Amino acid sequence: MISIVILGSGNVAGHLFDVFSGREEIRVLQVWGRNKAHLSYFRDRVAISDDSAELLEADLYIIAVSDDAVPEVARTLVGKKGLVVHTSGSVSLDALGNNDRRGVFYPLQSFSKGIKIDFKSVPICIEAENKKDLELLLKLAGSISDHVREISSDQRRSLHLAAVFVNNFTNHLFQIGNQICEEHGLSFGILLPLIGETVQKLNQLTPYDAQTGPARRNDRKTMENHLHQLENKNYKDIYALLSKSISEKYGQKL
Amino acid sequence: MISIVILGSGNVAGHLFDVFSGREEIRVLQVWGRNKAHLSYFRDRVAISDDSAELLEADLYIIAVSDDAVPEVARTLVGKKGLVVHTSGSVSLDALGNNDRRGVFYPLQSFSKGIKIDFKSVPICIEAENKKDLELLLKLAGSISDHVREISSDQRRSLHLAAVFVNNFTNHLFQIGNQICEEHGLSFGILLPLIGETVQKLNQLTPYDAQTGPARRNDRKTMENHLHQLENKNYKDIYALLSKSISEKYGQKL
Repeated sequence: MISIVILGSGNVAGHLFDVFSGREEIRVLQVWGRNKAHLSYFRDRVAISDDSAELLEADLYIIAVSDDAVPEVARTLVGKKGLVVHTSGSVSLDALGNNDRRGVFYPLQSFSKGIKIDFKSVPICIEAENKKDLELLLKLAGSISDHVREISSDQRRSLHLAAVFVNNFTNHLFQIGNQICEEHGLSFGILLPLIGETVQKLNQLTPYDAQTGPARRNDRKTMENHLHQLENKNYKDIYALLSKSISEKYGQKL
Repeated sequence: MISIVILGSGNVAGHLFDVFSGREEIRVLQVWGRNKAHLSYFRDRVAISDDSAELLEADLYIIAVSDDAVPEVARTLVGKKGLVVHTSGSVSLDALGNNDRRGVFYPLQSFSKGIKIDFKSVPICIEAENKKDLELLLKLAGSISDHVREISSDQRRSLHLAAVFVNNFTNHLFQIGNQICEEHGLSFGILLPLIGETVQKLNQLTPYDAQTGPARRNDRKTMENHLHQLENKNYKDIYALLSKSISEKYGQKL
């Protein structure tokens, strides 16, 4: 059995607590957090604390706080025997400071409050400084996910960057599409089959081969018309820049 | 029964021919096209022709050619009694010239060669200049899709623009994510669950509410690190611009 203390009380902490709670081989001993309101989510289900002097001994400490707060929270764990990991895509191992046993447990997924995640399909990227700790993380990650990968800090940084493009930026494009629809009396729902197909295609084609549209076929007239239709300065700039990037990718010059 | 001549031999023509062929209430009489190699796709299944003097009489002529070619192809149909429609999101009704009965039959989907489409879920946007023609298009569209909508030319232009954002530009972001992965020894497949979740969320949240990431939370340190990681000038610019647009959307200034 792996005993765990979770440090943090936000989205990631909540989702991890929920998925760990269903596993026999895992026992969450305590959730620690500075935000008493958030901590109430865990009350009645596990020991909670907002005092770092009360932290229990455990096999593993999972720091699931905002990136900036990782070093400070890690300092409260100096002297603990257990393995200390954080869950961030962009924070270095060194942010865990002087703890003896350090690692990373990075679930590559976007967590929103109230939206349930099927962890079985979430890739979990792990990193540790020695074999024993790596095995502990492999065991833990393997108990909740079918996609566990050991990756380096450098790979993790790249993965986090790629995730910003395919998740955060993609969502912003959806938001722009939504806004254009609303401004013209159309429901955003009409775009959902097209969005579904855009993603579905990735099972059969690389994104390079799946590219279509005015920029791909260098259809300047349509691009000019579209730019005229857009009033929002940012959206105009985004249209022009992404079209330029697509055109150049396929050897054209806009 | 609705008799149809399809003008064009590319992706859209092929997909329409395939879906119409399975319907009892529709009969495709002929496929006309200028590209003999493409026409061979239809040989043995329907009359084909590359000579506009041979065009048959039909209830409906569907022009499924590149946007620029619509006016020229429409001119070959002047004098025909049937309804003439095109399938483009961005071409005006006027491009159909002097034909008496004009309309639009716009399937809002991205068609790739060799990738089968389930038309039942494809929104089909129709437009016509009189009630009788609108009814013909409603009947035809309704026989292949569960999502038929009458929209105006102005709405269609906006929808096409929105589609470029959520389909073409989104695919380019996937391509960037793919490239970042490949450059760091990672398989693009590791991003697919995250991409799936990005889309899945739209069933429960608006894109505005679903937005996460460094720009949303104004995490300048992470954004600076990411910009340093990117070497490709276009990708750097895309990162900066989309981050700025997200930040401003949520009332921050980058």
